[in-house]
Amino acid sequence: MNRLQETIVRIGPLDREIMAQTQARLDNLTKPPGSLGVLEDLVKQVAGITREVCPNLPQKVSVLMAGDHGVVAEGVSAFPAEVTPQMVLNFARGGAAMNVLSRHVGAELVLVDIGVAADLPDIPGLLRKKVAYGTANMAKGPAMTRNEAMRALETGIEIAEELVAKGARLLGTGDMGIGNTTPSTAVVAAFSGLKVEEVAGRGTGIDDRRLQLKIQAITRALEINRPDPTDPLDVLSKVGGLEIAGLAGLMIGGAACRVPVMIDGFISGAAALVATRLAPAVKDYLIGSHLSEEPGHRVMMEMIGIKPMLHMQMRLGEGTGAALAMGLVDAALKIINEMATFADAGVSVAL
Amino acid sequence: MNRLQETIVRIGPLDREIMAQTQARLDNLTKPPGSLGVLEDLVKQVAGITREVCPNLPQKVSVLMAGDHGVVAEGVSAFPAEVTPQMVLNFARGGAAMNVLSRHVGAELVLVDIGVAADLPDIPGLLRKKVAYGTANMAKGPAMTRNEAMRALETGIEIAEELVAKGARLLGTGDMGIGNTTPSTAVVAAFSGLKVEEVAGRGTGIDDRRLQLKIQAITRALEINRPDPTDPLDVLSKVGGLEIAGLAGLMIGGAACRVPVMIDGFISGAAALVATRLAPAVKDYLIGSHLSEEPGHRVMMEMIGIKPMLHMQMRLGEGTGAALAMGLVDAALKIINEMATFADAGVSVAL
Repeated sequence: MNRLQETIVRIGPLDREIMAQTQARLDNLTKPPGSLGVLEDLVKQVAGITREVCPNLPQKVSVLMAGDHGVVAEGVSAFPAEVTPQMVLNFARGGAAMNVLSRHVGAELVLVDIGVAADLPDIPGLLRKKVAYGTANMAKGPAMTRNEAMRALETGIEIAEELVAKGARLLGTGDMGIGNTTPSTAVVAAFSGLKVEEVAGRGTGIDDRRLQLKIQAITRALEINRPDPTDPLDVLSKVGGLEIAGLAGLMIGGAACRVPVMIDGFISGAAALVATRLAPAVKDYLIGSHLSEEPGHRVMMEMIGIKPMLHMQMRLGEGTGAALAMGLVDAALKIINEMATFADAGVSVAL
Repeated sequence: MNRLQETIVRIGPLDREIMAQTQARLDNLTKPPGSLGVLEDLVKQVAGITREVCPNLPQKVSVLMAGDHGVVAEGVSAFPAEVTPQMVLNFARGGAAMNVLSRHVGAELVLVDIGVAADLPDIPGLLRKKVAYGTANMAKGPAMTRNEAMRALETGIEIAEELVAKGARLLGTGDMGIGNTTPSTAVVAAFSGLKVEEVAGRGTGIDDRRLQLKIQAITRALEINRPDPTDPLDVLSKVGGLEIAGLAGLMIGGAACRVPVMIDGFISGAAALVATRLAPAVKDYLIGSHLSEEPGHRVMMEMIGIKPMLHMQMRLGEGTGAALAMGLVDAALKIINEMATFADAGVSVAL
């Protein structure tokens, strides 16, 4: 067994006994049963993951994986590829949206170079895990070799394990990579069988001309590479990306360590699709955050069976939606830990 | 002019010039223009309200208005009316969901007895503003006199003005009142003309039998009282509630003071419907929070023109959804105040 397989077999089911105890506790709190909706679902899920009736997730870490994409040569993005390393430096200096939102929810931000097409300077907090200098142009051949995709997946597993060993109790996913809605769209098209036109969107805001180039590039990539939807590693390597693979690995690794993973938008959604195809048991460890503006995101979330909490028309990536939603998980856990029971409060129960 | 009219005429438009400056600043931050979606909309709205290009709302106050409802005699709720004062005491002790979520977002919680059908003990932080000992049974006649409804509205205005004078910069609305989804449903039915069956829901979780009683009670209330949808005060007094009136007043008062008001779920939605019918200019000062499980809530939000950010199947009230969403407003304001610009970060702009 390789590391990926070893990790997958370690993923256990949620602890239903603990969840039943959590449910009983929730139903004793001074509110009508179930009236806090998804907040209560979050508490139960985290209880089932952590095996604690009243769980806490004190240490939150957002993992932002950066990678480049050969397919930008097809003119699919409004930004040049140089922006990927420039933005990594911006993250390192704390000036990006993701920095602001991570600070807002008290999450540490870990940067990972898993496939930036440039040599990055030494940056505090940057994990150097480059598998390749970006992917190849998937419109002309496979984006990655099967071996590269596997290495990126295993890098994500390794990072999850290291972060959990250092105390991380909630992982968030995030991405940076100019052009990366293009492989993400190819991934959802490959797994869903939907037409590219139905799942392709404007990414960071491309115009009609670039949208046509994007649709053409994805269509060509699918025709040339013929990814096999029953073989997730085939889809990932042929039309995916290094950060998509790394994030899928992070989800698998988090699940194996019994740590919940908050998934962000479209790129993280593609990673979640790959991760749950490789290992369906991962799904119970994933928490949905926001519904992205990318039309394919809704498709992904429905395929996985996750309902995003935040409807904010965001389409930035970086992990920004996941970061925002971490605050909602914190709120949920405070509900079970801080609310009074009917008995505590002397409140009459339902008629 | 009475106090209500005097307050309404003071409500000015948003400052479009400031909003344009805020938009320019947002477009210079290191992200594709508009990619933070509703977070950017929130920044612009708050800028237009406060007349600050990079606004801050340091002091957040949630106002929880409690009132009782004569219509509970019709068997419309799963909880007895005694729960209203019991829950007020629970709020005072800090044990309710709303206390937990207010603390989570750093908001002060102000309790208001605007119409509890019991004498409450002296409680620190409780504003004693009782207009009546609950409403009358609207299934048998008007819930309130026109004068009572006006007094409750003006009480809300007064509270908004006092809180703003003491430093409040973001107001949240919340409610407590056993049975209060019943008048809220009547209010949305009266204004929308939709059938009661289409907008009635299970409130805190009533069974089929009680749901039928609730629909019958509302239908009777509308038949007997014939509220005039072109006269918001008529609708409010005949089939509304004291806390609905108080919260509508709070919204009008907040808008007149140029302070944004975060609206909660179904009861706050009914109040927002009344407030915007009395004074359409209020709408620009309201911020939507969550989409409630009550079917009538979506109708209200569409009628007002507000898109809730949180889809969490919550149906507790108290202001819990508004409290959660205050954290999103904080996040939005940090974006404009803390993010780097393209120039700061040396990041290439779009091709």
